[in-house]
Amino acid sequence: MSFENRPDGRSPGALRSIRLTREYTKHAEGSVLVEFGDTKVICTASIEEKVPGFLKGKGKGWMTAEYGMLPRSTHSRMDREAAKGKQSGRTQEIQRLIGRSLRAAFDLDAFGERTLHLDCDVIQADGGTRTASITGAMVAAHDAFGKLVKAGLVPAIPLRHFVAAVSVGVYRGMPVLDLDYLEDSGCDTDMNVVMTEQGHFVEVQGTAEGDAFDRATLNRLLDLAQQGISDLIKLQKSSLGLT
Amino acid sequence: MSFENRPDGRSPGALRSIRLTREYTKHAEGSVLVEFGDTKVICTASIEEKVPGFLKGKGKGWMTAEYGMLPRSTHSRMDREAAKGKQSGRTQEIQRLIGRSLRAAFDLDAFGERTLHLDCDVIQADGGTRTASITGAMVAAHDAFGKLVKAGLVPAIPLRHFVAAVSVGVYRGMPVLDLDYLEDSGCDTDMNVVMTEQGHFVEVQGTAEGDAFDRATLNRLLDLAQQGISDLIKLQKSSLGLT
Amino acid sequence: MSFENRPDGRSPGALRSIRLTREYTKHAEGSVLVEFGDTKVICTASIEEKVPGFLKGKGKGWMTAEYGMLPRSTHSRMDREAAKGKQSGRTQEIQRLIGRSLRAAFDLDAFGERTLHLDCDVIQADGGTRTASITGAMVAAHDAFGKLVKAGLVPAIPLRHFVAAVSVGVYRGMPVLDLDYLEDSGCDTDMNVVMTEQGHFVEVQGTAEGDAFDRATLNRLLDLAQQGISDLIKLQKSSLGLT
Amino acid sequence: MSFENRPDGRSPGALRSIRLTREYTKHAEGSVLVEFGDTKVICTASIEEKVPGFLKGKGKGWMTAEYGMLPRSTHSRMDREAAKGKQSGRTQEIQRLIGRSLRAAFDLDAFGERTLHLDCDVIQADGGTRTASITGAMVAAHDAFGKLVKAGLVPAIPLRHFVAAVSVGVYRGMPVLDLDYLEDSGCDTDMNVVMTEQGHFVEVQGTAEGDAFDRATLNRLLDLAQQGISDLIKLQKSSLGLT
Amino acid sequence: MSFENRPDGRSPGALRSIRLTREYTKHAEGSVLVEFGDTKVICTASIEEKVPGFLKGKGKGWMTAEYGMLPRSTHSRMDREAAKGKQSGRTQEIQRLIGRSLRAAFDLDAFGERTLHLDCDVIQADGGTRTASITGAMVAAHDAFGKLVKAGLVPAIPLRHFVAAVSVGVYRGMPVLDLDYLEDSGCDTDMNVVMTEQGHFVEVQGTAEGDAFDRATLNRLLDLAQQGISDLIKLQKSSLGLT
Amino acid sequence: MSFENRPDGRSPGALRSIRLTREYTKHAEGSVLVEFGDTKVICTASIEEKVPGFLKGKGKGWMTAEYGMLPRSTHSRMDREAAKGKQSGRTQEIQRLIGRSLRAAFDLDAFGERTLHLDCDVIQADGGTRTASITGAMVAAHDAFGKLVKAGLVPAIPLRHFVAAVSVGVYRGMPVLDLDYLEDSGCDTDMNVVMTEQGHFVEVQGTAEGDAFDRATLNRLLDLAQQGISDLIKLQKSSLGLT
Repeated sequence: MSFENRPDGRSPGALRSIRLTREYTKHAEGSVLVEFGDTKVICTASIEEKVPGFLKGKGKGWMTAEYGMLPRSTHSRMDREAAKGKQSGRTQEIQRLIGRSLRAAFDLDAFGERTLHLDCDVIQADGGTRTASITGAMVAAHDAFGKLVKAGLVPAIPLRHFVAAVSVGVYRGMPVLDLDYLEDSGCDTDMNVVMTEQGHFVEVQGTAEGDAFDRATLNRLLDLAQQGISDLIKLQKSSLGLT
Repeated sequence: MSFENRPDGRSPGALRSIRLTREYTKHAEGSVLVEFGDTKVICTASIEEKVPGFLKGKGKGWMTAEYGMLPRSTHSRMDREAAKGKQSGRTQEIQRLIGRSLRAAFDLDAFGERTLHLDCDVIQADGGTRTASITGAMVAAHDAFGKLVKAGLVPAIPLRHFVAAVSVGVYRGMPVLDLDYLEDSGCDTDMNVVMTEQGHFVEVQGTAEGDAFDRATLNRLLDLAQQGISDLIKLQKSSLGLT
Repeated sequence: MSFENRPDGRSPGALRSIRLTREYTKHAEGSVLVEFGDTKVICTASIEEKVPGFLKGKGKGWMTAEYGMLPRSTHSRMDREAAKGKQSGRTQEIQRLIGRSLRAAFDLDAFGERTLHLDCDVIQADGGTRTASITGAMVAAHDAFGKLVKAGLVPAIPLRHFVAAVSVGVYRGMPVLDLDYLEDSGCDTDMNVVMTEQGHFVEVQGTAEGDAFDRATLNRLLDLAQQGISDLIKLQKSSLGLT
Repeated sequence: MSFENRPDGRSPGALRSIRLTREYTKHAEGSVLVEFGDTKVICTASIEEKVPGFLKGKGKGWMTAEYGMLPRSTHSRMDREAAKGKQSGRTQEIQRLIGRSLRAAFDLDAFGERTLHLDCDVIQADGGTRTASITGAMVAAHDAFGKLVKAGLVPAIPLRHFVAAVSVGVYRGMPVLDLDYLEDSGCDTDMNVVMTEQGHFVEVQGTAEGDAFDRATLNRLLDLAQQGISDLIKLQKSSLGLT
Repeated sequence: MSFENRPDGRSPGALRSIRLTREYTKHAEGSVLVEFGDTKVICTASIEEKVPGFLKGKGKGWMTAEYGMLPRSTHSRMDREAAKGKQSGRTQEIQRLIGRSLRAAFDLDAFGERTLHLDCDVIQADGGTRTASITGAMVAAHDAFGKLVKAGLVPAIPLRHFVAAVSVGVYRGMPVLDLDYLEDSGCDTDMNVVMTEQGHFVEVQGTAEGDAFDRATLNRLLDLAQQGISDLIKLQKSSLGLT
Repeated sequence: MSFENRPDGRSPGALRSIRLTREYTKHAEGSVLVEFGDTKVICTASIEEKVPGFLKGKGKGWMTAEYGMLPRSTHSRMDREAAKGKQSGRTQEIQRLIGRSLRAAFDLDAFGERTLHLDCDVIQADGGTRTASITGAMVAAHDAFGKLVKAGLVPAIPLRHFVAAVSVGVYRGMPVLDLDYLEDSGCDTDMNVVMTEQGHFVEVQGTAEGDAFDRATLNRLLDLAQQGISDLIKLQKSSLGLT
């Protein structure tokens, strides 16, 4: 059976080739190159020994995320946000999503008054950069907390549960998993899902680009996402040597 | 049976008192004060006789939205975004959501090279400002298009279908509809749903503020949203004299 | 005798219909909707329990004002200042004027190290928004200080004297009081006057839009302003139940 | 009779020593160093062969002004506005005032589709920088228009009437003319007046810094201003060789 | 003979290990990962089919460069420039240098009205990021022009001469070539040199961080730079298959 | 023998007429008007009784510089940087250069926890504004430190050595000293050199605007610069009465 509808011939429920490369750069406490097919994102986790003002003296930690794209990570060159002097609404939306997702994965009460900065920088974009970012940042954060454990600064990695993210959508009438750029730009419905290893939802963000979608379609998309995320979390754990 | 769990005694599936006041201010082509309980938003629709550069000469129209809060619409005073010199990530996220939702309601090919600017300004906030904005902006846009029809500039209101929006969430373990501020700030899961009059989804945005939520909870929340939105669309139509 | 020269038939020395609605929104310590005819401004007064850096430790209070217009408060839609990333020179000029005027009305030494933030947001503009703002902010500030008195935090409202403001101008050769938009955009000379209940000047700002004006005209305009402000202060006091 | 009340011993109605130095810098079409005592402002007038968008094709000219202070023109160093990335409200207020005043002096219909840019840069401040700027910019603009006449581009200098400006105020209970910094920072009432050579008002801006002022005081201040401006205009004309 | 003075044991005139990886990302017309030891920079060259306004209609091309560092490319995390809303002086200085250097390498009259955008993004920093950027951008630009040739849009690569860049400095009293971060942060004198394949200077920028340096030292540094750049240009040509 | 090649007939190694006017404005601790021919820059040195955060409590001082041009200091009017809301890359590059050069001239450990702010504002530009700025700022800083000595706050002027700066370049094939605007805009190679009174280099910044330049040319340019700077330092000392 062949799936001619998907540009790269994948079956509807197939992920692209996923790779997680740890210790990708040398300075950050956690540094991961995450690849979802041709989408490539450098995720670093940096530990800072203080928290934002609103948390000072409460004994809690904080995690925050920033996201960026190199100007020519995309098909045609985008203006550099630093040169324009502001981050787009899309950028801010994505970095808020990454931050919320990662704060759901770890116990903010269990690593002292520290901030973990997650930086997700897209060096090559081919669809799904935000879900790749979340999936890679999970591993980078785990590595950074591992450094704190090794240094004796926290007793254990403050893990609540693994989280990963994937996109799903309706492409040419067919619900599919992990859309690449060609699918993403041609799809009717686009949904990003962040889930825990227990199969619970951290975030569900679905948008009808063309026609509104019905409940049955929503359910089929969530099924696809659940399977994909389960596989992604296995890959995260295996890259960390946890299985 | 009483519902002591909700601060204002509403049953889990009850909307707050909803009011839509048309022609609230005199200059805009459409101007609606929308009230969801104590949440009050002025939604105006303004017609501009041109489109953004990327649409010039294509014979299509455009709709875009902006959102703001008066500094003391909230419990404690917020800084004025115009004075700070930038809109927050939250503001941008909301105005992008309003724009996408309204573009789903109307046929952009059917009102010429015009832009409809939707401005949603919160004068009093008590939870659910973004869903109130979408619900009110729908009526304001309808009124503005009505002016174009009356002026003989377009043959008919370019309506695809009515849309409305509502929040749902899990408050003290119980799925509830249309959260007010007290519920919203204490809830575990918060979801904003935008639907058409056919009961199809335009947007689903759910976030686990505390624990991740399971599929059964998601389904219960979507049921509540569907019922609430159905009622809101009845109110929209009735305020427009369409029923 | 009829006054055909003024678009709405008012006599040269007549104010528009003035309304002051207290407790217009629920969160602010003082909240007033002020209406000068079709000009409508929400004025809120918010108390903050600290002062700017330059006043710290001096036992004095501070009052400051901000001003904004909803994008479609005007005949044609204006760009949103928060979206443009800066306040116009006109906006800054107006909010500086409001701040100076209100600081003249109250005794900054008599309410502790607190800041009173005045926010004047125009929801519908028809001329005279700055003078309406000052007149309404006076009542909002009085209400806010009343809350401090009721809470036992200050012994008495730190009132020096009431202030109100009105515009005057030369319209079609005739000095008139309280110009609406039609008059304002067609007038030769435009003057904004802020006075105390004693009939003393706090601010006089007159500009010749067309021909320069002579001393006799100036005097006639000041006479009109003095009468108008006297009436406005009566309305302020009556709305506060002080007469 | 001595006037001990004024720090520099001037009589109440005396101007400081005024100097107007034309052709102060070499590139600008008009370039004037204006000195009011120790206040020194470089005023340049630059001709640009186009008008802003809102005037294109109407056959009219435009005049606009910008104002700045060198960081150490003042007693203690101010932050540089270019480094802070924005102009203060005070700066914008002043440059709007200069622009309005100069547009009143010349006939915008009589010099073609050109823009005259006036730049007033304070190199040493000792009170009255905005009135010195207007007085100097008048001469710089006259010189720039003279260049257009000499080049045969306009038939005559498009002069409506000379304008000049001066400050007046109440210092230690005494109305005085042309306040220096010591007087300005200690005065109760501060007024800036712009008048034509006919003795008509272009701008009147009075502010009660301390106690509100009465009508009699206002009249005394306007008398002083009228005399001072009459003298300033004589100096302008004499510096231009027009008397 | 050993060189204990240099942290990594290199001889004074030795380059670090240099690598140039072409086609590093897939979208850009030219894309090179350049590595000077642990310093890693992605250099992309993007062709745009238009020129800036000041060159329109002149039949000439333009080349311009932008530079950025990933927030955690450095030892401790730097703030993201896009989030701060402005590029630092250092960033602007570097991108101006890259642009000037590359414009010296190619003939701007020989590739039509096109702009070549060079983006140099540091993913790992260990000293010498600006010289690595210039060296890598040379190869990326060559590749991008090669695409234009292949597409028949220009007859030949518009090469004037190869350029490359290297840093030299005085470390512990000893002139050395190609400083790494440890050397750079501890050195007295730091110089960046850009030269052509003919051994002529395009840029010389030397700064005494500590004591001023004498003419003899300058000469010794220039000797080192000349040798290093000669080797770098050999590597550039060999990576392009030109030798 | 005549030098027809230089527009103003100077010999290749001749400086323009140099003037240093101390106490040019009255508020700053040091205030110098420096003139290199028609290039005129006001250099002020302002003492602030604190240091930036990164130096607090270390007992060291700091020196920093800012640079600006009046909008019509140039042949055609430039936009005002304060109005545009940002400083250009060129401005930042120049003020960083001035700051580094002056920090090399004084001993930062020898004047307590103070900051010396240098402001260099060009009132008339004719080439060489940055080298004039450095040369003038040296004298202004010396004067400001002299005030601290006179006030008994520091025991002696914390001088390490005098520094001055000059431009050199290749104009019509001939190496020349101290280029004016005509030469600067037509030259192939432009170099700015900052040296100490010992003839050692603080900064060397050479750029080939047209053809790259060879080592012999570089050497000839440095010879010219060394002679010119030696003369400039004599003028600095003589203006300070030190010779």
